[in-house]
Amino acid sequence: MRDGAQAEGISFTVTDKLKITKRLDDFGIDYIEAGNPGSNIKDMEFFQCVKKLDLKHAKLVAFGSTRKADIKVSEDNNVLSLLSAETGAVAIFGKSSLLHVTDVLRTSPEENINMIFDTIHFFKENGKEVIFDAEHFFDGYKLDADYAMKTLQSAVKAGVDCIALCDTNGGSLPYEIEDIVKAVIQNIHVQIGIHCHNDAGMAAANSIIAVQNGVSHIQGTINGYGERCGNANLCTIIPSIELKLNIKCIADKKIQDITNVSRYVSEIANLAHNEREPYVGNSAFAHKGGMHIDAVQKNSKTFEHISPETVGNSRRILMSEVSGRSTIINRVQEVAPWITRESPETQQIIDKLKELEYLGYQFEGAESSFKLMVIRELGKDRTFFNVKDFRVLCENPWNRENSAFAIIKVEVDGEEEVTAAEGDGPINALDKALRKALEIFYPELSKIRLTDYKVRVLESGNATASRVRVHIESTDGDNVWGTVGVSTNIVEASWEALVDSIEYFLYENGQWIINN
Amino acid sequence: MRDGAQAEGISFTVTDKLKITKRLDDFGIDYIEAGNPGSNIKDMEFFQCVKKLDLKHAKLVAFGSTRKADIKVSEDNNVLSLLSAETGAVAIFGKSSLLHVTDVLRTSPEENINMIFDTIHFFKENGKEVIFDAEHFFDGYKLDADYAMKTLQSAVKAGVDCIALCDTNGGSLPYEIEDIVKAVIQNIHVQIGIHCHNDAGMAAANSIIAVQNGVSHIQGTINGYGERCGNANLCTIIPSIELKLNIKCIADKKIQDITNVSRYVSEIANLAHNEREPYVGNSAFAHKGGMHIDAVQKNSKTFEHISPETVGNSRRILMSEVSGRSTIINRVQEVAPWITRESPETQQIIDKLKELEYLGYQFEGAESSFKLMVIRELGKDRTFFNVKDFRVLCENPWNRENSAFAIIKVEVDGEEEVTAAEGDGPINALDKALRKALEIFYPELSKIRLTDYKVRVLESGNATASRVRVHIESTDGDNVWGTVGVSTNIVEASWEALVDSIEYFLYENGQWIINN
Repeated sequence: MRDGAQAEGISFTVTDKLKITKRLDDFGIDYIEAGNPGSNIKDMEFFQCVKKLDLKHAKLVAFGSTRKADIKVSEDNNVLSLLSAETGAVAIFGKSSLLHVTDVLRTSPEENINMIFDTIHFFKENGKEVIFDAEHFFDGYKLDADYAMKTLQSAVKAGVDCIALCDTNGGSLPYEIEDIVKAVIQNIHVQIGIHCHNDAGMAAANSIIAVQNGVSHIQGTINGYGERCGNANLCTIIPSIELKLNIKCIADKKIQDITNVSRYVSEIANLAHNEREPYVGNSAFAHKGGMHIDAVQKNSKTFEHISPETVGNSRRILMSEVSGRSTIINRVQEVAPWITRESPETQQIIDKLKELEYLGYQFEGAESSFKLMVIRELGKDRTFFNVKDFRVLCENPWNRENSAFAIIKVEVDGEEEVTAAEGDGPINALDKALRKALEIFYPELSKIRLTDYKVRVLESGNATASRVRVHIESTDGDNVWGTVGVSTNIVEASWEALVDSIEYFLYENGQWIINN
Repeated sequence: MRDGAQAEGISFTVTDKLKITKRLDDFGIDYIEAGNPGSNIKDMEFFQCVKKLDLKHAKLVAFGSTRKADIKVSEDNNVLSLLSAETGAVAIFGKSSLLHVTDVLRTSPEENINMIFDTIHFFKENGKEVIFDAEHFFDGYKLDADYAMKTLQSAVKAGVDCIALCDTNGGSLPYEIEDIVKAVIQNIHVQIGIHCHNDAGMAAANSIIAVQNGVSHIQGTINGYGERCGNANLCTIIPSIELKLNIKCIADKKIQDITNVSRYVSEIANLAHNEREPYVGNSAFAHKGGMHIDAVQKNSKTFEHISPETVGNSRRILMSEVSGRSTIINRVQEVAPWITRESPETQQIIDKLKELEYLGYQFEGAESSFKLMVIRELGKDRTFFNVKDFRVLCENPWNRENSAFAIIKVEVDGEEEVTAAEGDGPINALDKALRKALEIFYPELSKIRLTDYKVRVLESGNATASRVRVHIESTDGDNVWGTVGVSTNIVEASWEALVDSIEYFLYENGQWIINN
C-alpha cells in the first residue's frame, strides 16, 4: 500500500488506507506495508487509527530506512518513529549497491554495512519481526556481487527474519533474476523475498521465476500501482501462483474474490480500472473474433487459459447480446421471480442495460439502480412522489459557509409541498431540500444518511461539458445501498442517483417483489 | 496490425491502417501482418490501396488459415483470397493442438496434418514466403507433444520459411516456454518464431526468453493491443532486445523513435495512452518520492534502468509533499530565480505547500497552480482582474439542453463588466460567463480551450458535503497547463481551477519571472 501510493495520480486519505487495509485483510494478504511514519504525518495518523480495526489475519508493517550515517541508531528520529507506529513488523530498506552507497548516501562501504546491522539489531531487540528490503540488490549484484552479498550477511548477522531482494529500477530480465536468486538462496539461510518493478515489463514474470527458484515472500501492489511503470502486480501474480504453480498464497477459497479486490482498490484510488489487466480486467475474458467466439462456445478451454469464474471474473461475448445473460436473469428474478431466460421481457431488459452501459452507467456497486430500472422496464413501478420543479441558486462562495440554496416542489398523492434548504454547494442543497420536502409524507426517510459520493468524469476531453457518472451510497443504519446517475450536468447526474436512493428505500420499506 | 485490431474498442479504417503501415515501415519493422482478406472486405480494400505506398523496408503479410477439411486447396476460397492480396509473404495459421482438431475443426488428426502440408506447399509453389503460425502450439505440446511436433514437421516438409510458435491463450509461464522452445529448436531446422498473448501477464517476458533460447522472429503489437489481455507488446520487447540483449531488431538509430510510434498508434486507435507503459509511458520516468528525486538528480542511473532519451521519452519530476526540498526549490526558481535553499521564503513556501496538500490539493499535473501559489506567497502577484460577484441558477434539467445560467461581474483597471452565459450544468455556465466577461479586456483569452476536467471526491464519507478536488487542463493551441482547486463546494473548487488557468495564461503572455 505504501509503495502503490507512490504512483502518479494516487493520493490516499487516511480513510482510504483504512478501507484498503480492511479489504486486504479479508482477502487474506499476510503482510500490509502501510506507511512510512518517519517521512509523512498522514501515515502516522493512519497507524493511530488502524489500531481500532479488528484485523483477522494480516500483519501491519511500518516502513523506513536504516539509520543515517555516523549517528547512533537510538538517536535517529526516523528509526524511532517506526517504533511509535507500534506494528508487529517493520520493513527496513538499506543499500545493497555500491553505486548508491558512494553516490547517494555518500558514506563508506563499511559504514553502510554497519548501518544495516545496527538498525536491524535495534528492531530485533525491540521485539519486532524485521524484513530487510535490499534496495537495488540486482543492480548492485551486477556491479559488485561480493559487496551486495555482504549487505545481506550483515542483515542475517543482526537477526533479520526475511530479506527481500529488490529490483528497484525494474530493469532486470528474467534470466538475470534467476541467476542472482539462485546464488542468494545457496548462500543466505533466512527466508528470501522478491520486490520487482515493471520498467522493463517483466515484474510479474520475474516474481514468478523467483518463486520457482525458492523465494517464498513476494512484495507487490494491487493492480501493479507504483512509481514510474509500477510495482509487480499482485492481481497477476497471485492467480498465477495459486492456479498455475499450485502454491497457496492467500486465504482459502478467496482467489475468486480477486477481481473484486482489484476493482475496489481502483475505485478508491479513483483510477480507471485497466480493462486489459490479466485475470481481473473487464476484457480479460472478452471474445471478439468470430472464430474465437465459435470455438469458445464449443469448448471454453479452446480460447481461455483458465475459467473466468475461478477469479470472480466473467466471460463476455462482444457484439452479441448473450453476454452474461444468466447473471442478468438472476438479478432480474430478485425483483420479478416469474421472469425466465425465455420471457419476452428478458430481451427488453438486456437491450436497456446495453443502452445504459453505452451511455456510461455502471451497475457494479449500484445494484439498487439496476433493480429500479428493471421494475420500470416491466411497467411495475410505483409512484411514491413527483418532483414538480426545482431551482438551485449558487452564490459566490467566499465569506459564506452555505453558498447554495435549493427550492423544490413535490407532490405526493395529490398534495403539494414547496420547501427550500441551503447547503454547501448545489448538490448538498438539493439533497437537503428533497429530503426535507419528502419527510413530511414519509417520516421514515429521516433515517437515511448518504455515506459516499463519487464523481467520475467520462470522456474528459469535453472539459466542463463532459459526461459525468455519480455514484452514491446510502444507509438507514442497517442496510447499505448504491445508486448511479449519468449526465453532462453534474447536478442532473447527482439528482438521478439521489432520487433512486430514496425510491429504493421506499420500495424496501414497502412491497418490493412484484407479481406478474 | 491484424491481431491488434482484434482488441476491444479498436476499429481501424482503411486509412488508419495505411497510416500505421507507413509509420511502422519508417520505424524499421520487418514484417507487417496487415489483414485477413478472406474474412474481411475492408482488409481486401487495404491490400489494394497499400500498393500505392512506397514502403522502404517492411514486407507486407496477408493472414489466413489452412484449407478446410476434405476439399482441394486450390478450391478453397479463403486460400485463393490470400493470393489475390498480392503480398510477398503470407502467414498461414493451423492447429497444433489435438483438442482443437477434435473439438473445433472436428476433423481427423491425419487430415489436419495434410491441411497444413497442402496449404503451405500451395503458397510455396506460388512463389510466396510462408510463415506458419502454429496455433495453440504450447497448449498442444503440453497435451500431446508428439502430435504438436508432427504439425511442425509437416510444415517443414512443405517447404515453410519460418514457424511461429503461438501461445494463443496466453496462459503459459516462462519456464514452460523455455522448455518447449528448446525442444523445438533441437528438432526443427527452419527459422523459429514466437507469438505470445498476455493473459497471465507474461507475454513480453515469454518473448524475451524465447529469443534467448534461439528464436529469431517475434510477433507482437504496438502497445500490446489485442484480444482479451492483448498480444506481446512490441514497445516493451523491442527496447529490451536492443538495449539489454544488444541484438538489432529494427532500423538503425530508430529506437529513440519508439515512444513516438507508441503514442501515434494509440492516437489512431483512439485509446488513451497507457501512462505506466514500460519505456514509452508518460510516467515511465516520472519520479515522486523525495529520496528518489534527490538521488536521480545526483546520478540518474540510481533510479532509472535506462536513460529516457534513448527511447525518445523524458524524465519528469512530480510535485508533492513526498518530493524533497530540492525539487521544490527548482520549481520556485523558475518564477523567482533569487530564492535559494537558505532563503527565509523557502520555508514559508514549503509550509504553505504542506498545508494545501493536507487540505487535499495535489500539484502533480497542476504545476501552474503551484507557480501561482509561489508568486502569491511572495507577495509578487499582479491583479489582472477582480471578480466582484457571481450567481449561478440551475433549473430542473429535463426538457432543456442548457439548464444552468451564470451571471458574473468582473472589474479590470476600474472598469466593470456584467455578463451572463448559459451552459450544461453550473460549472459549464460559469466557465463560459467568466471567459465572456474577460475577453472584452483580454481578447487573447479566446485562444484558450479546456481539454480536460477531472473531479475527485476526497473523504467521501461526508457524502454530498464532501471535499472535492477539481483538476483542469487548458491549452492555447501551443502549450498545455494544469490547475487545481479544492472545496466542499464543487462550484467553488472548479471556479478556483478556472481562475488559476486564466491567470496563468495571462502571466505567461506577460511578465512571469519576477525580481526580488
